[in-house]
Amino acid sequence: MKEVNEKPHRRATSAKQEQIPRQETISLRQKYVGPSCKLFFTSDPLKIVRAKGQYMYNEKSEEYLDCINNVAHVGHCHEHVVTAGNNQNAILNTNNRFLHDNLVLLAERLTSTFPQELNTVFLVNSGSEANDLALRIARAHTGSREVICQDHAYHGHVTSLIEISPYKFNLPGGGGCPEHTHVALVPDVYRGKYRDKDHQGEDLGQKYAENVKDIIEKMQSEGKKPSCFIAESLQSCGGQIIPPPNYLREVYKHVRNAGGICIADEVQVGFGRVGTHWWAFQLQGEDVVPDIVTLGKPMGNGFPVSAVVTTADVADSFKKTGVAYFNTFGGNPVSCVIASAVMDVIEDEKLMDRAKEVGFYLKSGLQQLMEKHPIIGDVRGEGLFVGIDLVKSRETREPHTKAAEHALSRFREEKILMQRDGPFENILKMKPPLQFSKENADRVVSVLDLILEEICALDSY
Amino acid sequence: MKEVNEKPHRRATSAKQEQIPRQETISLRQKYVGPSCKLFFTSDPLKIVRAKGQYMYNEKSEEYLDCINNVAHVGHCHEHVVTAGNNQNAILNTNNRFLHDNLVLLAERLTSTFPQELNTVFLVNSGSEANDLALRIARAHTGSREVICQDHAYHGHVTSLIEISPYKFNLPGGGGCPEHTHVALVPDVYRGKYRDKDHQGEDLGQKYAENVKDIIEKMQSEGKKPSCFIAESLQSCGGQIIPPPNYLREVYKHVRNAGGICIADEVQVGFGRVGTHWWAFQLQGEDVVPDIVTLGKPMGNGFPVSAVVTTADVADSFKKTGVAYFNTFGGNPVSCVIASAVMDVIEDEKLMDRAKEVGFYLKSGLQQLMEKHPIIGDVRGEGLFVGIDLVKSRETREPHTKAAEHALSRFREEKILMQRDGPFENILKMKPPLQFSKENADRVVSVLDLILEEICALDSY
Repeated sequence: MKEVNEKPHRRATSAKQEQIPRQETISLRQKYVGPSCKLFFTSDPLKIVRAKGQYMYNEKSEEYLDCINNVAHVGHCHEHVVTAGNNQNAILNTNNRFLHDNLVLLAERLTSTFPQELNTVFLVNSGSEANDLALRIARAHTGSREVICQDHAYHGHVTSLIEISPYKFNLPGGGGCPEHTHVALVPDVYRGKYRDKDHQGEDLGQKYAENVKDIIEKMQSEGKKPSCFIAESLQSCGGQIIPPPNYLREVYKHVRNAGGICIADEVQVGFGRVGTHWWAFQLQGEDVVPDIVTLGKPMGNGFPVSAVVTTADVADSFKKTGVAYFNTFGGNPVSCVIASAVMDVIEDEKLMDRAKEVGFYLKSGLQQLMEKHPIIGDVRGEGLFVGIDLVKSRETREPHTKAAEHALSRFREEKILMQRDGPFENILKMKPPLQFSKENADRVVSVLDLILEEICALDSY
Repeated sequence: MKEVNEKPHRRATSAKQEQIPRQETISLRQKYVGPSCKLFFTSDPLKIVRAKGQYMYNEKSEEYLDCINNVAHVGHCHEHVVTAGNNQNAILNTNNRFLHDNLVLLAERLTSTFPQELNTVFLVNSGSEANDLALRIARAHTGSREVICQDHAYHGHVTSLIEISPYKFNLPGGGGCPEHTHVALVPDVYRGKYRDKDHQGEDLGQKYAENVKDIIEKMQSEGKKPSCFIAESLQSCGGQIIPPPNYLREVYKHVRNAGGICIADEVQVGFGRVGTHWWAFQLQGEDVVPDIVTLGKPMGNGFPVSAVVTTADVADSFKKTGVAYFNTFGGNPVSCVIASAVMDVIEDEKLMDRAKEVGFYLKSGLQQLMEKHPIIGDVRGEGLFVGIDLVKSRETREPHTKAAEHALSRFREEKILMQRDGPFENILKMKPPLQFSKENADRVVSVLDLILEEICALDSY
């Protein structure tokens, strides 16, 4: 064997939290890591070396309040989850072609949180793998390739999902909208086509659903039918969108009437984050039941594990293609025991009640700030999924992108990790670990108050 | 919150190796797990509850010699790997938008095993994610969608990869070959179009590469150009194929002349399995350098971690699309320290030397069996990647599928886990953990001897 390269041959170790100085980390990253992979705070990125609960720590042991990592769902490095995974790591980690109890017990348990029809589980590694599999299944079930998605949606990084993610394909180098993709209006009652203030007393859910119906009719006039409608139950990248009542009920009706099926993407918002329910689609009513639900990010509290949950009937169509589905790491005993441990913590620590209570408290605090700060156009959310919409004018609802950008870096100075998103990047986006407390909420509200006062005092804003 | 389902609410735990009786595991699997997910030994599946090194154990503590799990590359539950992951699990597991030393040290270290040009790393969760990203990058770099793959190839389970996997799309319900996919001959000198015995003294590598050239010329005559050529460096699902010398060198030349780039899929065969080199493409010569290499299965010894390695130039084209690449779990500190620990073990335990030595010993033992058993048509392999091709006649090389099927279940009775593959499923396929020993090889050889004697004595064969 010839050593082909003369580069240093350093090892990574978990024995030390910091192994090389920060500046070297930055330069190695520039040298060896794909430049399409972006850092938070590009010009002065954070080096995080440990985390616990809702707090992250940099190499100087400075503590940051984490408002953004929904993956660390039950809190960073939760002992119960870590222990479950670590014990299993020492015993067995292999593929799902062997029988294992962790896999079947997790599948059983997951289905227990869904309406009865949703009783069949596929275990995969990531939200992208889950959404791609959901598409494959929908296409097999319906014999159609056509997909209806929402504007600004993002469903994952693999080819088939970039194709149904306007958030990506509408970028200048994003390749544009493929022929088989049909983009519906995002049901945003604050800044979308149909706004609450212009349509008081109207059923905006129905109105936005009519748009899906129109798309289907156009498709049909071209001799096509939809394979599926896919939407995040609460759209995240589009700016923390809460669809109006009746939206999914009406959309699902139109899609099914045309022979398509309905996919709820719960990769960002599932597992009790909304507080009142395990799954955000349930906010739309007990009778609203998707044909496929995809799960991801929070499922393993950081471990790569995700799932597709569907009906026996739809799963059977996929089986009938005769093409077996094998996912090397999907459903391994480690990922399954970790996902089950995450569900333990959600139940044992009553994190859904907590998400509901703290989420309500946080929203109330933010809404009170609205009295003082006209720059806050809207505060919306469910449980610990909250958006703060910054505007130049409450009348026009013109997005205040610059203020959001400024707020973000000021939050960071105040040791609070915040994100922004939406088509105009003017929406401050909160989706903290569910251990987030009322004290944490108070801190966010008072720091935001301070930041908005500063912004208000600046001539340039 | 309403409990939507009345199912039992059992937890999974790693505290017990077996939590429910085997029959219940089977019935829960039938009830709740997607029926497209197949078990080994469908009619009487194995329940594996623990594993160590090259051995797996069922619920009765019966030991099986593992010849098939290339994912458990350095041995099941290797203490060094488990410890590295477990320590990191307790400290931090978050996404790559924060700086972390484990990520950059792994990227640096990975590139040190490649030719100098291959200096840019993307970290992802699975071989499927890696191959999909490789396609996205190749398409961005070349502005073309056309892909040349090999017959019988399998590159992963997501939509874009099923489209370039004849192993899947040629199944009755597999959807057929898409327009942008161009299938080249598999460079199989034993059963392919050009066979060693019919073309003695000829350069079969060049001959098989001519086929790729023909495909490119046809493509060009239709006004198209290839985005990429993708092939496993040693084709696995096609039946443990070792391409003849000069094959990749010639193919790469043709593809590059036409403006395409070259992807080596090392998901199955990488990380030193071939013994003489870290990567199987290196078997074709020092001057043979792909533009993109994809890594997967063995990389995390069971943990979902994979990678794309490419040149700065190709990575730059992808960056220039302006579409950022974010993979939620990809490159997290846990996966990176685990991958680094796997590389530690490969080096510290000299597993490449071992793969070379034991692989040679195993192949010699199997080749000796050929003197006695005409049913063995061919024994081929590199290191601990070995195929045993069972035939009805050495003259015609007609595959003996039934014998392979029988051998597999007899191996199982003898407590040896073996697989079969290839278009005719007549090739016994070995890719054991690299801790596989000469004693293990002796056992496989003597059990195979016994099984083939039995088969020989059966009238029906």
